[in-house]
Amino acid sequence: MATEINGWVVDVYMPPPSLEDNTADADRLEKVLAAKIGAGRVAINLELSRKLPEKLRSWQYACKCVVFGAAGRWQLIDVLNPHEQFAAAGLAVDLGTTRVVLRIVDLQTGENLGQSAFDNPQIEIGPDILTRIHYADKPEGLGRLHSRIIDGINAAAADLCQSAGIDPGQIFLAAVSGNTSMTHLFMGLPAGGIIREPYIPAVNAPGVMRASELDLKVNDAAAVFVFPNVGSYFGGDLLSGAYYAGFHENEQVAMLVDVGTNAEVLLGNRDWLVVCAGAAGPALEGGVSEIGMTAGPGVIDSVRIDPETREFEIHTIDEKPPRGICGSGMIDLAAQLFVSGMLDIRGRLVPEACGSRLKEQDDMRHLVVAFADQSATGGDLTISQADIDSLIRSKAAMYTILETIIGYVGISFQDIEAFYVAGTFGSFIRPRSAISIGMIPDLPESTYCSLGNSSLEGAARLLQSRNAVAAVESIKERMTYLELNVNQDFMNRFSAAKFLPHTDAGRFPSVHRPG
Amino acid sequence: MATEINGWVVDVYMPPPSLEDNTADADRLEKVLAAKIGAGRVAINLELSRKLPEKLRSWQYACKCVVFGAAGRWQLIDVLNPHEQFAAAGLAVDLGTTRVVLRIVDLQTGENLGQSAFDNPQIEIGPDILTRIHYADKPEGLGRLHSRIIDGINAAAADLCQSAGIDPGQIFLAAVSGNTSMTHLFMGLPAGGIIREPYIPAVNAPGVMRASELDLKVNDAAAVFVFPNVGSYFGGDLLSGAYYAGFHENEQVAMLVDVGTNAEVLLGNRDWLVVCAGAAGPALEGGVSEIGMTAGPGVIDSVRIDPETREFEIHTIDEKPPRGICGSGMIDLAAQLFVSGMLDIRGRLVPEACGSRLKEQDDMRHLVVAFADQSATGGDLTISQADIDSLIRSKAAMYTILETIIGYVGISFQDIEAFYVAGTFGSFIRPRSAISIGMIPDLPESTYCSLGNSSLEGAARLLQSRNAVAAVESIKERMTYLELNVNQDFMNRFSAAKFLPHTDAGRFPSVHRPG
Repeated sequence: MATEINGWVVDVYMPPPSLEDNTADADRLEKVLAAKIGAGRVAINLELSRKLPEKLRSWQYACKCVVFGAAGRWQLIDVLNPHEQFAAAGLAVDLGTTRVVLRIVDLQTGENLGQSAFDNPQIEIGPDILTRIHYADKPEGLGRLHSRIIDGINAAAADLCQSAGIDPGQIFLAAVSGNTSMTHLFMGLPAGGIIREPYIPAVNAPGVMRASELDLKVNDAAAVFVFPNVGSYFGGDLLSGAYYAGFHENEQVAMLVDVGTNAEVLLGNRDWLVVCAGAAGPALEGGVSEIGMTAGPGVIDSVRIDPETREFEIHTIDEKPPRGICGSGMIDLAAQLFVSGMLDIRGRLVPEACGSRLKEQDDMRHLVVAFADQSATGGDLTISQADIDSLIRSKAAMYTILETIIGYVGISFQDIEAFYVAGTFGSFIRPRSAISIGMIPDLPESTYCSLGNSSLEGAARLLQSRNAVAAVESIKERMTYLELNVNQDFMNRFSAAKFLPHTDAGRFPSVHRPG
Repeated sequence: MATEINGWVVDVYMPPPSLEDNTADADRLEKVLAAKIGAGRVAINLELSRKLPEKLRSWQYACKCVVFGAAGRWQLIDVLNPHEQFAAAGLAVDLGTTRVVLRIVDLQTGENLGQSAFDNPQIEIGPDILTRIHYADKPEGLGRLHSRIIDGINAAAADLCQSAGIDPGQIFLAAVSGNTSMTHLFMGLPAGGIIREPYIPAVNAPGVMRASELDLKVNDAAAVFVFPNVGSYFGGDLLSGAYYAGFHENEQVAMLVDVGTNAEVLLGNRDWLVVCAGAAGPALEGGVSEIGMTAGPGVIDSVRIDPETREFEIHTIDEKPPRGICGSGMIDLAAQLFVSGMLDIRGRLVPEACGSRLKEQDDMRHLVVAFADQSATGGDLTISQADIDSLIRSKAAMYTILETIIGYVGISFQDIEAFYVAGTFGSFIRPRSAISIGMIPDLPESTYCSLGNSSLEGAARLLQSRNAVAAVESIKERMTYLELNVNQDFMNRFSAAKFLPHTDAGRFPSVHRPG
């Protein structure tokens, strides 16, 4: 049944020793293994060398080898009985600031054996990165943050293993991706430099560690690969996403955007890559407006407004009565308000068009998204002109960042053949709506592709291929970091992008509105 | 004072980080260090990465780096305060079957900080290799042998450190050489395969271990390099000796002979190398004749016989009354007996020439080396015709091995520009005497060079140079192992070599005898 994949478990058969071929056991194994995987050398540690003579003889010089290689250094992690069906599992971890997602994968077949998620237990110490890093500077602080995330992963991995019917000791490889701060706390590395000028991480490329160095309760000898960061603001989670999107192999020019409080952007193909990161404003995470919230039951995730009758058709998660609106719902709402004439090109609510949905409250115009009789709160759910202004600043910042990186490279948006949107937010965003407000360029909708949790997917894919680490390293090495200078030029572009969809409406030929 | 050597301690100054150069601390250090030592990458482990941010800042981005590299893999062992005078020490160990010799070396200056030796504590379990390996096959046996040698080294190293005024934690590097069995027991590796057909060690190239893996009480992070073996019968001690003799760099063709129960022979230069090992017989270790013994007070180490008067002039160690004779004394004795006509070319005692020194005892001729009134034993010290026959078989075996390897390569003895003799035995042997009996070829005496404990010297030299490991590896890789087939051809040559100095006396033009 086992599909032969180019994975980290390798079947090896050696010619048995003889008087004519008296190479030592470890060297005999290394020679055959290195040739099979195309490595120069494969390191075999002492602990393993001590076991080899007996094991190789009892298995008649055949075995399954669990290997790992990064930065040209290959190592043998363990040798396993060639006659046993299931060999070894790998653990992929997406270390989110708020949510941690785990997946276990059969290292021999590449099969997904299960997935789970839990809230990052560091949240109790600090909800955001800054608070945690300040806490890490206190005595014992770093150790506590480190233990929390490790304990959390250990508990979740143990549960996952139980469900999959395997033992944590059968996990021989872990691939971990997260932003620079999260990976530092995961490794127990001092993270203070990341948040203080000149913003210096302790480590860019952590390479490969042993599970026991990190107190991970998987096989003691397991290799743990942490995706490298390119600096304080461009973390391993993005690199993992870039790998998942195929930036190591694609000929076509693609753009990858990870949208959050920061927008991280990659542009390029297998030959060149430019990356940048910039503040896109918190509006896109759904955290600013009074009714903004992250996705959950009763949260509005899509809005449709009839262009003729201006009647609202709102959809909520799990179809519960509405209680708030998430980022993608907010973009939908703004887009629909605009194309139905309820927002003008400056983003102002138009009283004549809004009719009875317009309210004046605290000296500011509000738009009722759901009336009290429909809402879960018993009151009107409204968004204010200030909420809309904030969203428009965010979308303008995003568009300006994209325009800047495109201009830096000297191509046009039309040269982009694939536009990937990463992250949870990216899974929900509707390109049509984002185009309508001028947040993303007016490209055919088929150009846009949501990657889902690309950080986790990249980590999981790394567990499935012996070529993965080299691919990740090749992406990292090709990256040119574009420092976003918020200069007059940037500000001019930003001002132009604050219109709906843009001062230069010709850039968005597909966006139509009445009148 | 510190001489700048190309050693394992490297002074590094880094440009401090800035907004324009925000490389992480570990990667910043790695970059500068790798460039300085000409390495592609230098691995920095997690433990060290955790300490780096604070240390580098407190030292203003300067530090002393203790590095080690083998098989193209470089690692940073520790970073040290750049302002402290003494940095780090290294420990060289010659793992003899009977005697273990240690030396500590200043890793920065290369200076010798002290040396000591102790009896291998495994002797209490078994005096010889075979007994120990059989013992290692028993439950707990290997562990006990391993602990004994490790404990012995730890105790001796602690004493040595105390004398030198340093702490064992300041030892960051150890280089260990020994025969294949001794290094296996040192590493706790199963050694049973070494003594059983087809004679397979567990490991040929153990590479670099961490001191803590071996329970060595030096710095926990210290790198331990064990000289590789080329098989069960060609150990790391010989490779260390070959490195000490300069086989990685010498243009001239040289021969290195390590004489013991086995004779190991290397022949070559920096371009090619042939090695072989063969049984030379125990006579050369001074263990066969009734009065044969290893060097010690009262042991005859040199003999001179007046060719006219045939009077004996014997010299003993510490000039104590004679109680026995060592290997080199035995060779001297045989040589002098031969050139003074007391032995014929067949190695038979000549009654007319031996005169009153000839005794018949147990139906065999004996020669009195020291009469009862001079000896420490109160009786005559004699050697028998059988002792002489045994010595002659040994010298013939040795010469035949040398002749075979020379013939295999297709050169003549006269092409050898340097002839190194290794081991304790090699320190005492007088080339003139060995030539006289035809044990070694008739080359100018200046060709012969005693290396002393070349196994220890090679290990100590490895601690002094960053190029050493590559040199050792280059020697190992160039080695062609010549299997000595004891065929008819070999036996013919052996028979011819059983004469004094040889059937073909023309091969030894410098050897003259009366008559």
